[in-house]
Amino acid sequence: MDAIAAFDELSARLRRIGALEQVAGLLNWDQETQMPPKGGAQRAEHAAAVASAIHDLASAPRLGELIALASTAQGPDAVNVAEAGRLHRRAVRVPPALAADLARAAALGQEVWIAARAASDFATFAPTLERIVALKRAEADCLAEEGVGGYDALLDGFEPGTTSAELDRVFARLRPGLVDLAGRIAAKGAPVPALTGSFPAAAQLALARRLGEAFGYDWQAGRLDLAVHPSCSGSAGDVRITTRVNEADPQDCLYSTLHEVGHAVYEQGLDPAQAMLPAGMHASMGVHESQSRLFENQLGRSRPFCGFLFAEMERAFGTAGVADADALWRVANAVEPGFIRTEADEVHYNLHIMMRFDLERALVAGALAVGDLEAAWNERFLADFGRTVPDARRGVLQDVHWSAGLFGYFPTYTLGNIYAGELHAALRRDVPDLDARLAAGDLGAVVGWLGARIHRRGRMLAPRRLIAEAVGHEPDERALLGYLEAKYQRLHDL
Amino acid sequence: MDAIAAFDELSARLRRIGALEQVAGLLNWDQETQMPPKGGAQRAEHAAAVASAIHDLASAPRLGELIALASTAQGPDAVNVAEAGRLHRRAVRVPPALAADLARAAALGQEVWIAARAASDFATFAPTLERIVALKRAEADCLAEEGVGGYDALLDGFEPGTTSAELDRVFARLRPGLVDLAGRIAAKGAPVPALTGSFPAAAQLALARRLGEAFGYDWQAGRLDLAVHPSCSGSAGDVRITTRVNEADPQDCLYSTLHEVGHAVYEQGLDPAQAMLPAGMHASMGVHESQSRLFENQLGRSRPFCGFLFAEMERAFGTAGVADADALWRVANAVEPGFIRTEADEVHYNLHIMMRFDLERALVAGALAVGDLEAAWNERFLADFGRTVPDARRGVLQDVHWSAGLFGYFPTYTLGNIYAGELHAALRRDVPDLDARLAAGDLGAVVGWLGARIHRRGRMLAPRRLIAEAVGHEPDERALLGYLEAKYQRLHDL
Repeated sequence: MDAIAAFDELSARLRRIGALEQVAGLLNWDQETQMPPKGGAQRAEHAAAVASAIHDLASAPRLGELIALASTAQGPDAVNVAEAGRLHRRAVRVPPALAADLARAAALGQEVWIAARAASDFATFAPTLERIVALKRAEADCLAEEGVGGYDALLDGFEPGTTSAELDRVFARLRPGLVDLAGRIAAKGAPVPALTGSFPAAAQLALARRLGEAFGYDWQAGRLDLAVHPSCSGSAGDVRITTRVNEADPQDCLYSTLHEVGHAVYEQGLDPAQAMLPAGMHASMGVHESQSRLFENQLGRSRPFCGFLFAEMERAFGTAGVADADALWRVANAVEPGFIRTEADEVHYNLHIMMRFDLERALVAGALAVGDLEAAWNERFLADFGRTVPDARRGVLQDVHWSAGLFGYFPTYTLGNIYAGELHAALRRDVPDLDARLAAGDLGAVVGWLGARIHRRGRMLAPRRLIAEAVGHEPDERALLGYLEAKYQRLHDL
Repeated sequence: MDAIAAFDELSARLRRIGALEQVAGLLNWDQETQMPPKGGAQRAEHAAAVASAIHDLASAPRLGELIALASTAQGPDAVNVAEAGRLHRRAVRVPPALAADLARAAALGQEVWIAARAASDFATFAPTLERIVALKRAEADCLAEEGVGGYDALLDGFEPGTTSAELDRVFARLRPGLVDLAGRIAAKGAPVPALTGSFPAAAQLALARRLGEAFGYDWQAGRLDLAVHPSCSGSAGDVRITTRVNEADPQDCLYSTLHEVGHAVYEQGLDPAQAMLPAGMHASMGVHESQSRLFENQLGRSRPFCGFLFAEMERAFGTAGVADADALWRVANAVEPGFIRTEADEVHYNLHIMMRFDLERALVAGALAVGDLEAAWNERFLADFGRTVPDARRGVLQDVHWSAGLFGYFPTYTLGNIYAGELHAALRRDVPDLDARLAAGDLGAVVGWLGARIHRRGRMLAPRRLIAEAVGHEPDERALLGYLEAKYQRLHDL
């Protein structure tokens, strides 16, 4: 068999894996949005069967042979061969039964978490989480190699090439700036503004759809549904987002939609020629989050876009809940040490992540027992945010990730924020009339810029390299801190 | 390895196959109800990847070894081993690429069929159907054995043990009775009654839900959505039905819902101890259809149930569209040689099936080219129904089956009608107050009777045997013809 024939067979197998991964995503979306209440136990078996099929394909000796035979491939093909190697190496280290158990436990975990969150009762979730943590520790042990610890092996699944030691260094540089900024804002003692009024759910969802359109989301290749946790799933011609609605405050719905639209436009903009192949997939979760946070924050909470949003809210609700666009901008950028990560302001957001990073690392290392997690969460929250967590719903039960077995995922959010800071600075450089475009709700130039530099490049470069080439230098946290400093200077005259 | 260990491993593999089959069903449901317009091409790859995973499991040599090792199993285990043998024998005959291509073509076929049906343009569907027919012929050639022709091998996938020769004999006995009855009804020249008024879609769907509840459908284990073609998919705790709405005539929505609820209550009533194993699956598509047709026709169009329905329609719409329950009963049993199978009266319905049976047999045999199908359809329809088909939408494009590759499926509908006739007669014998229960919309006793004799027995008996044990004798078409004769005597004083 020659290298070309080997690559063709390898590609066909990779596309099957890619298709099954999309099926796994659809099963999860369906569970969160459509599945009837009694479908949970079966759904866990569906997830396990699909995970087993993926594991069978990824760990097959034949895949290893084809990877060796196709090793002379060039360009995107070389990326596909290298990524196949990575996938294969990881899969062969995990026993088939563990791969199935992990998927089963994650699907069952969703149902238990949703019920426990609704009841704000961590105790009913703890046994399920204990099982998930035990399985993730077993997986981490399988994946750990010389020089790569268990947690880092999980992290590598979301952010290839990144280590927790590197994250420690990044977070150590970022944290003082955020704490200092939060302290200076708090010291000003300005009242925290909020919207007044009631904003009907249907009108919120209609406006969310309108905003998605403005940000380049193709509704012919996607849809919006309600779910407990906002999310984005799917790729290419079928990228679905979810949101949630609070009739007293449309910001949760609108900004979580902008966030998910950032993810969705990335997935819709991947290279169709590499569909379902690694080279045509997102570069990393950190890069993914850079797209969502850029849309939500640097663009969505900018003063000019708030002008556009004010007019749209007046049209949608009869009132925007504030007197003028400037007031809306202040509400959208209110700083307050709140309990909920997804609603956190840009100053506090990464402190949430650092806290989760430390807690989940301790869980995976076995240094923290699930039984002690709620207390550890509340203690750490008090230390970092100066507030006492009132209940598990607003504390340890707020996020979907651990119930879905996503350990090693949270820190990529902060990497995403750092990358978003860099991309925003580069956009300001390359799109001189950006503010005028934002004020008009015209994001075409932004989406075009991102499409060429990020979306269509898929996994062709390692994550940091991709951002570096897009912005013209190695990314670091300074762009994010500089952006935050300038914004809050202007807001609070610090 | 002893027989018990072999059976345990075999069961685990069968459950994986069962779970993947449910995933395939969900992909199809999602495609019909939720998928965005641009998702079709990917969905075909999803379907192909899941079909390949099923085929890999079902054709694996290891499955054959386990089947041999577990051959001493008893009771339900013996059924599971035997069904595994059947599955394995069929799978090893079909090349992996063909299995994937069939699933891919069926998923793509859905999209093309829906568009062609909407445009009533057979020519745009013909190339797709040609591809599907070619693949089905290839599959039939693989599956054919000595003494079992290609079409019969496809038929065997839906109705194990049934042959087209047997169907020819059954249809030859049934047909004259139906044609004679249709002729005598037409000769009476009674005007065909219809409902008057407009019936809002939301109220139709609410009433459809209410009827589902009355017929024992567990809404915690299911849901109702709109689709081009009414259908039922899933099993056990997640059984989803679809319907369609015509605001001028709620009968399409209401009776198609009763029909799908018949399928759904069967799936919800299977033995949980055998979940995802063959012994815990439906006995055959003919038995499945007996449940849906019994609910829709023998029960749903009965005079006492029409009394219940009249009151429910008055409550739902303000008016039932007719003066009284008796008039509603006459509308629900109007006889007319209409174009659409799913809306056909009970006299003409099986003539639709016989026509499709002959046409699809000719397609699979290569005796009829796809290019000639529309003309053959129209010619046959004129011969059997005495009416000229006005357009493809009301002709050759009306049904989903061929676009989904379901050749050999149609004739099971008539078997289902025959079985429904037998089950109805047995129910009248065993539930003496059946009419009073129908008048009250109380189907509990019916569902209990069916649950014990049909639903919970799954695939423990061959289809005919299952019906024979439920009713106390070998089933034939006489119960159906006797029921129809009595009903239309009463309606038309023949």
